[in-house]
Amino acid sequence: MSRLRFALDPKSVAIIGASENPNKVGGRPVHYLQKFGFKGKIYPINPSRTEIQGEKCYKSLADLPEAPEMVIVAVAGDNAIGAVEDCAKAGVKIALVMASGFGEVDAIAGKAKERRMVEIAHKHGMRIVGPNTQGLANFGTGAIASFSTMFMEFERVEGHVAMLSQSGALSTVPVGFLNPRGIGVRHSHATGNDSDITVGELAIAVAEDPEVKLMLLYLESIPEKKYLEELSEVALHRNLPIIALKSGRTDAGKAAAQSHTGALANEDRVVDAFLEHHGIWRAPDMRGLVEATELYLKGWKPHGRRLVAISNSGAVCVMTADAASTVGMPMAKLAPETDKKLKGILPSFATTTNPIDLTAALLSNSRLFGDILPVIAEDPAADAFIIGVPVAGPGYDVPAFARDSAAFAQQTGKPLVVAATQPSVAREFQAQGVSVFPTEVEAVTALNQYVSHHELMARVKARKRGPSSSLISADKTEMLNEADSLALLASHGLPVVPYRLAHSRAEAEAAFDAIGGKVVVKGCSADIAHKSELGLVKLGVASREAVGEVYAEMEEIIRKQGSRFDGVIIAAMTGGRREIVIGAHRDPVFGPVVMVGDGGKYVEVFKDTTLLLPPFTRDDAKRALAKLRIAPLFEGVRGEPPMDVDVLVDAMVRIGELMADTSAKVMSIDLNPVMLNTNGCVVVDAVVFKGE
Amino acid sequence: MSRLRFALDPKSVAIIGASENPNKVGGRPVHYLQKFGFKGKIYPINPSRTEIQGEKCYKSLADLPEAPEMVIVAVAGDNAIGAVEDCAKAGVKIALVMASGFGEVDAIAGKAKERRMVEIAHKHGMRIVGPNTQGLANFGTGAIASFSTMFMEFERVEGHVAMLSQSGALSTVPVGFLNPRGIGVRHSHATGNDSDITVGELAIAVAEDPEVKLMLLYLESIPEKKYLEELSEVALHRNLPIIALKSGRTDAGKAAAQSHTGALANEDRVVDAFLEHHGIWRAPDMRGLVEATELYLKGWKPHGRRLVAISNSGAVCVMTADAASTVGMPMAKLAPETDKKLKGILPSFATTTNPIDLTAALLSNSRLFGDILPVIAEDPAADAFIIGVPVAGPGYDVPAFARDSAAFAQQTGKPLVVAATQPSVAREFQAQGVSVFPTEVEAVTALNQYVSHHELMARVKARKRGPSSSLISADKTEMLNEADSLALLASHGLPVVPYRLAHSRAEAEAAFDAIGGKVVVKGCSADIAHKSELGLVKLGVASREAVGEVYAEMEEIIRKQGSRFDGVIIAAMTGGRREIVIGAHRDPVFGPVVMVGDGGKYVEVFKDTTLLLPPFTRDDAKRALAKLRIAPLFEGVRGEPPMDVDVLVDAMVRIGELMADTSAKVMSIDLNPVMLNTNGCVVVDAVVFKGE
Repeated sequence: MSRLRFALDPKSVAIIGASENPNKVGGRPVHYLQKFGFKGKIYPINPSRTEIQGEKCYKSLADLPEAPEMVIVAVAGDNAIGAVEDCAKAGVKIALVMASGFGEVDAIAGKAKERRMVEIAHKHGMRIVGPNTQGLANFGTGAIASFSTMFMEFERVEGHVAMLSQSGALSTVPVGFLNPRGIGVRHSHATGNDSDITVGELAIAVAEDPEVKLMLLYLESIPEKKYLEELSEVALHRNLPIIALKSGRTDAGKAAAQSHTGALANEDRVVDAFLEHHGIWRAPDMRGLVEATELYLKGWKPHGRRLVAISNSGAVCVMTADAASTVGMPMAKLAPETDKKLKGILPSFATTTNPIDLTAALLSNSRLFGDILPVIAEDPAADAFIIGVPVAGPGYDVPAFARDSAAFAQQTGKPLVVAATQPSVAREFQAQGVSVFPTEVEAVTALNQYVSHHELMARVKARKRGPSSSLISADKTEMLNEADSLALLASHGLPVVPYRLAHSRAEAEAAFDAIGGKVVVKGCSADIAHKSELGLVKLGVASREAVGEVYAEMEEIIRKQGSRFDGVIIAAMTGGRREIVIGAHRDPVFGPVVMVGDGGKYVEVFKDTTLLLPPFTRDDAKRALAKLRIAPLFEGVRGEPPMDVDVLVDAMVRIGELMADTSAKVMSIDLNPVMLNTNGCVVVDAVVFKGE
Repeated sequence: MSRLRFALDPKSVAIIGASENPNKVGGRPVHYLQKFGFKGKIYPINPSRTEIQGEKCYKSLADLPEAPEMVIVAVAGDNAIGAVEDCAKAGVKIALVMASGFGEVDAIAGKAKERRMVEIAHKHGMRIVGPNTQGLANFGTGAIASFSTMFMEFERVEGHVAMLSQSGALSTVPVGFLNPRGIGVRHSHATGNDSDITVGELAIAVAEDPEVKLMLLYLESIPEKKYLEELSEVALHRNLPIIALKSGRTDAGKAAAQSHTGALANEDRVVDAFLEHHGIWRAPDMRGLVEATELYLKGWKPHGRRLVAISNSGAVCVMTADAASTVGMPMAKLAPETDKKLKGILPSFATTTNPIDLTAALLSNSRLFGDILPVIAEDPAADAFIIGVPVAGPGYDVPAFARDSAAFAQQTGKPLVVAATQPSVAREFQAQGVSVFPTEVEAVTALNQYVSHHELMARVKARKRGPSSSLISADKTEMLNEADSLALLASHGLPVVPYRLAHSRAEAEAAFDAIGGKVVVKGCSADIAHKSELGLVKLGVASREAVGEVYAEMEEIIRKQGSRFDGVIIAAMTGGRREIVIGAHRDPVFGPVVMVGDGGKYVEVFKDTTLLLPPFTRDDAKRALAKLRIAPLFEGVRGEPPMDVDVLVDAMVRIGELMADTSAKVMSIDLNPVMLNTNGCVVVDAVVFKGE
């Protein structure tokens, strides 16, 4: 942890605005540093006291025996700015500013104040956490520079989970969730307004802590990608899983985020694509962020997703199958020998096929459970297990079930979860180190997340990772006319419709002869984006005379508009089995984004599209296509032959390469439709914007 | 509770196979009848004992001083059958059979045994609960005829919730869920194999208990609809909400249900439509079944779904807006005066627009909370409230927050929920009678369910309910040829394509002249369902000569097949803005079902369809259309005019009426496509099956 060492492991901490009252913002850090065994020096600073919470108190920073490595600035408003300046000049390494009323309140003046503080700090080699931060808490070193109320509840907080957040509450709420489950959190950091040290930069430093086995992130805004990219590299390198909860998924959420932090709103689908690209699991909500935590800490090596379910309730068997099917975990098909052996053990009215229903017979014979587990353990079809014990208690040997389950998990080395509603039953399993969830839905959902995340990380690691696509911006962007757009695409290897650009009636007629059959005639102007509405698209023109006439009409229309006349395109009529859309744009934060989906007129209505971040592989492109609702059509349905997905994948990869190539300065691409056929695909319409 | 009084409130209960051990199947009911204050007579029967659990024990049924109203049969297998026969002959009113090994194990022999027991019972006026039942538990009367382990955990179980289930575990697991939340369950009944008294029939009797305020159902199989229909009538009449968890949603779940109960698998989407039709809320899983229970018991009268959120965490504000948006609850737009008043109370860095972010300022000033609530209470835009307190504790006056919240809820009379993760915080609110959930997602989801269920019940009550559609079955079903299908539909007022059925080449040519323009020619035979594949559909035939030739070809094709030749259809070519599908079939359990959706060739790929049960209104039909993914197209997108949804709704209603009319004996209808246009819609293809 060399990086940001002064933030995570300072040798001395001063508190400007320290308070005797441990429930005040300036009192909490003093209390926590003592409570959680901080080994370094504690310097409370408060001009009106000589001692605070048993520590010698100083009148000012200047009175300290040394320059502290970290200073917690717990005074408000402009006093905080002055304190930061003092710290910088005194040689402090980290100033942690708790005061609010900066960029989160006023995106102009507030942000300007933040920038001023950061400038002064950097001039003196100091870094800033905050402002508007609840603080950092490293329970590994005892450096708890935080005023969180949550830590008042715990005597000790030790473990292998790191939680980082821009929000104060969200840096600690997961700690409160996990603690009752016996899961300790080692890091709980809130970075506030991220004026200097961002949650991403801090996360990289935390990811280097070898004691961290799982990292959780709460993000309200992602203003830049570079730290998260580096974080992903560091984490994948050491197989550290990261789960991120990014709020502001919906318009209402984005509006709320903007009004309370002034934060930039990220395009949510791009966030999805970005996190997936980097092997980071995106949690839908708080519960999703913490629910599977235990499973990540088990050290399992999952090899598949075929589930075996065992319960003493037939209803739970059915609901488990429903839940598994819903998340995409198939029920394992057990071998005939397994079935035979189970039949030898279980009563005739039990069910020996998976899910295995022990029935209420377990009340008469508690040994049934321990007897069948070894049989199931031997079946190679099982990748993961769920044991559902909705009701047990007097008459059942629950401690034996728990011991048997733990031994079974040990024997197989495969993921195993238990669903038990009754706290008395859950406790017995937990005491044996088995992961317990209240119902089969939570259990299966967590199991699926764990297995799927493992698969995702393996996929991202296996992918040869090129350098991340650079951000480019253009002072000015200009639409290419359609002929130039098509030419650009053709020069990058995309299959475009056969066409000619005619600059005279004679050329137009010659083009008709050359292309043959009925043609499409389109007016071409870099000033006109919506050609159809002006009558600049004519389909099925069937004779050279007609082409000539249309040429003349279109030239007149364009010139009457006062638009540049770049000629008239004569193109082959091209049908397709399905109209596909391929698009690309440059996200201001995440850079180039490629979109593919169901195209045609209603692309915005059906929104059956997926996103990919370059660089991506052919496999990535195929996975993206497989997510579409129209995916079954690619295989061919109702006796149709399959469509030529290979060339579509080629086209996607080429668009990705073109967007990744900053020298090409392509700002956006809109290809709709791309006609997909049994053999090949063809770009029919293209709008490309380039930067200058 | 006159109905099934002997099952729910017997004056005397005998237990055949009674046991001294309260953890044995035959010991539990004796124990529970004593423990939960049963006032009637308890008669343990066991030939080898004189006393059981302090009660005088009898050698046999014949030795009892009277015929008991209820007998619990706690002996196994064939002994149970003998006992049932004894009971019937002795004048017992209810035999509750706990033994398993009947229909759930063997759908043939096991079911036959059940039928035999029921026959004997009915001959003597006795009714049967079970077999394979865990038993009934009415905590209102203390009649606990159950061997559930769950009730060992509770000293008293009192409340206003009724839980009925076919499964034993699921009749009690919700009790275990609700108890720690301080919510009592009055009824907890497991009906097992439903050989005689079904869960539905019992539910009607329970719904008549005026103390029941909310009914929960777990259903694994719905073999007949009549009891659930009657239940819905009874419940709606007294405003009793019903929430049903029906498992076997997925193929894997259905397979599990079949292998452990041999139960008939219901078509899941029809179950959805049926429950919605009857105002019953369908829970997706166990948690969904119980999660909103508290809200139903508050006695609120919700008037809308606009939400106001208040939190001391900006992150929770954002996540609440995300959660609300996801479930479809908009954030209320507060009045400018409200905003002004809030600004006067809150610090400048707080957010006064909804969601309202109090920020960590609440730590410095606990009164902020109590000060703003009365202001918000006055705003008419608010329909429901959520207060998010992710972290509080020392330094916060949580008891005051809880009191203020309770007073606020009282003042507004509007639904209010709290999201609080920390148990210490949750307890304070619960102590004031406020409903608390661990996170905003659960809170908002429960609130939305409660409001939406209320809306659904109001809608179903407002709908003039005709008699439910009858089930009809046909020994034989026969496909009508297309001409007859179209004629039948036309006679019921559906707009069908202009067509003629020609029986000779001359008639075909005359039809071409009469219809005008290009035509479609289709071979017509009641033996041929897939015409296209045999070359029996020709589009765009453009001359009378061509029509004549096609006529001759098609006659030859049909005759060569050895199929009936019913003529050749000449129909107008009809385009449409969108191809719609309307279908109908008769579900063996639920009767007629009408389907509408996105039609055309890929109807099975996109599955963008919804179901309706006749009788349904035009409003119901509109709501069904609004659920489709293609719904935005109806309004007109990208400058298109709207489509004629009114005539589509007409067509749907007419199909509903036709299916509800049993005398018409229509078994199924498949109209694909129905061409929907700006003006009108037209049925182009029709396949109708009739019963005989």
